[in-house]
Amino acid sequence: MSAITLDEARALDKRDVLAPWREAFILPQGVIYLDGNSLGPLPRTTPARLAQVVEREWGCGLIRSWTDAGWLEAQTRIGGKIARLLGAAPEEVVVADSTSINLFKLMVAGARLRPGRRTILIEAGDFPTDRHMAEAAARVLPGGRVAAVAREALVDAIDADTALVVLCHVHYRSGARHGMAAMNAAAHAAGALVLWDLSHSAGAVGLDLSACGADLAVGCGYKFLNGGPGAPAFVYVAAQWHGAIETPLPGWFGHRAPFDFAAAYEGAEGVARFACGTAPVLGLAALESGVDLWLGVDTGAVFAKSAALFAFFAEMAADRCPDLALITPVQAGARGSHISFAHPQASSIMADLVARGIIGDFRPPDILRFGLTPLYLGFEEVWRAVSGLADACEASARNGANHLA
Amino acid sequence: MSAITLDEARALDKRDVLAPWREAFILPQGVIYLDGNSLGPLPRTTPARLAQVVEREWGCGLIRSWTDAGWLEAQTRIGGKIARLLGAAPEEVVVADSTSINLFKLMVAGARLRPGRRTILIEAGDFPTDRHMAEAAARVLPGGRVAAVAREALVDAIDADTALVVLCHVHYRSGARHGMAAMNAAAHAAGALVLWDLSHSAGAVGLDLSACGADLAVGCGYKFLNGGPGAPAFVYVAAQWHGAIETPLPGWFGHRAPFDFAAAYEGAEGVARFACGTAPVLGLAALESGVDLWLGVDTGAVFAKSAALFAFFAEMAADRCPDLALITPVQAGARGSHISFAHPQASSIMADLVARGIIGDFRPPDILRFGLTPLYLGFEEVWRAVSGLADACEASARNGANHLA
Repeated sequence: MSAITLDEARALDKRDVLAPWREAFILPQGVIYLDGNSLGPLPRTTPARLAQVVEREWGCGLIRSWTDAGWLEAQTRIGGKIARLLGAAPEEVVVADSTSINLFKLMVAGARLRPGRRTILIEAGDFPTDRHMAEAAARVLPGGRVAAVAREALVDAIDADTALVVLCHVHYRSGARHGMAAMNAAAHAAGALVLWDLSHSAGAVGLDLSACGADLAVGCGYKFLNGGPGAPAFVYVAAQWHGAIETPLPGWFGHRAPFDFAAAYEGAEGVARFACGTAPVLGLAALESGVDLWLGVDTGAVFAKSAALFAFFAEMAADRCPDLALITPVQAGARGSHISFAHPQASSIMADLVARGIIGDFRPPDILRFGLTPLYLGFEEVWRAVSGLADACEASARNGANHLA
Repeated sequence: MSAITLDEARALDKRDVLAPWREAFILPQGVIYLDGNSLGPLPRTTPARLAQVVEREWGCGLIRSWTDAGWLEAQTRIGGKIARLLGAAPEEVVVADSTSINLFKLMVAGARLRPGRRTILIEAGDFPTDRHMAEAAARVLPGGRVAAVAREALVDAIDADTALVVLCHVHYRSGARHGMAAMNAAAHAAGALVLWDLSHSAGAVGLDLSACGADLAVGCGYKFLNGGPGAPAFVYVAAQWHGAIETPLPGWFGHRAPFDFAAAYEGAEGVARFACGTAPVLGLAALESGVDLWLGVDTGAVFAKSAALFAFFAEMAADRCPDLALITPVQAGARGSHISFAHPQASSIMADLVARGIIGDFRPPDILRFGLTPLYLGFEEVWRAVSGLADACEASARNGANHLA
């Protein structure tokens, strides 16, 4: 395989129809940012939007802004915008709380739709908070238990005792993506529901929850949606469940009429009942600013460029970094929008890379993870990143040899 | 009773040692703000602090700011600052989620410290979200039930089946304050714990949770702490329970080592395990800015001025607004820092007041509520507010008379 040249990378950037989107973000000089799958960068529109919310809406409007500035509707309004990225109807998505809290809500709510079944089925090695929350949910469900099985054994493990299958759609380490429609069908055939964690999917891969027969999903605002550190998360509940589903965390902002201050809880219409406490207005404003960008984006071009960035990274790494073991599926439809490699010295290699201004993630024990975010990442940057990665791998090998000497 | 004059109000403002604090807030022209107990106003320091977090820490620091800018420690750091206002040790308070979510956490966690007891005892007519969450908590506890009894019957209702007494320390409508030490003692004598909702207490009245033998508490960041709309809330767990208590919502940010990504949940030390999902950095920054103001305040002067503002308001209203029925206890130690009146036309009177630039709250069916916030509210403003209130009451009476005519 002949090495990809810097000129070839630049030529790809010239042909990139998404290149102008980079200007929509404020990125620091001297940094190649391959961690937008952990914390998306700052949209250029966000500082002014936040300043407006803080100085005008909070500072001048004060309490009146709950009604006059649309704060009360923000959770469903932003949910409706996110719905477009999920292939969902606007009334099926609400923004609320964190992904962890939302997992708990939908695990308990989903399992209660299947009374008599005791098992929440999860994938062994999935993101820890998903597992912790499944155990917490099982603890509060009658006879509840968690079964954690390997990816390849999941479908066979769905049985008549399975209330809910809970899966990260795209795996946080490997990037491997589940076939959503097939998994939903397998679960439904056994009478179970599926709850998808879309944290590494929303804004990363094409989604069509409605067409896939999805029941329930949660996802994250601060990764590919660029909503800011610790941004509020989202909840999706398919319309078919709106009549039956109840939230296990019935706070006043999920009430049909919170300002009636009624003692009896009456959930709001549909997914809106999954709001809970007072809406986090500042976090919502930053999230909306990030989500609004997406409304003008050609998502088909995003997902195509994601595939091209992956192919470029993988090919160049195969050539320049022979010590790295690619652990992400090569087929575009079988993965998300990050690329991961295993290496015994992954931790020190990532520290070296970060010192070089190339920011990815280390995930223990041995994973190097790089987010591929087409809105603001170019091919020249990937070329420079893989060059740096090759240098860091070589430096690590030299250090290892010195240690052995 | 002779009417209080505007000159007398101005004289009180001249002697007010807290008067300079008003400059610490940005308040709109033409507004008298008596709703800081619902949404505190904007501290003058907050816009710049938020801009720094957004533009420098998020925009330039990106993912590195979790460690470099202290984001990871923010929840315990701010908790430690709030602890000073609560009479608690720094390691007993953490900031996380919303008051509603935190109520659920501590209701379930507290009741689990008293296995075999089934009852969560609440006060009838307390804030709705507290009741909704008690019902949600009871549903997930073995044999759990909620008993809602009238204020005066609470102590007698604590029995051998009571796991937890959950009370709003200061009532959101009447402003009536429970005797915290006595209630804790009564509950402990019966083997129960008490969970206090301090939403209308923190920053409003003197608190000494340690000296009162308090077990558990939650509270709100966006009222008297001026943390911004929907600010993160706080959790207090007395040190004596740190060894035994478990969170029912074990998210990764409450884990001892979240970045080890271990499948097994191990709670962080003490109250820190009550963090859950990824920390909401923007909301935390605004909250910290509000809380930091409090660190320089003479709280004794605040609570003394609160009492003086109340006496001023009550006396002038008794004189000028004979149709209003004061429903807040007159004794300073028996209430919070708001004053409430009942009036059959409360809703339209408050609408009239707001149109006059005098902002308080209507609480159905018939309550007018006014927050008394000594850091930025002066006696002249209260004088003008009560004058406006008198005019609004008279207008309402005239309209009523016209209706009857």
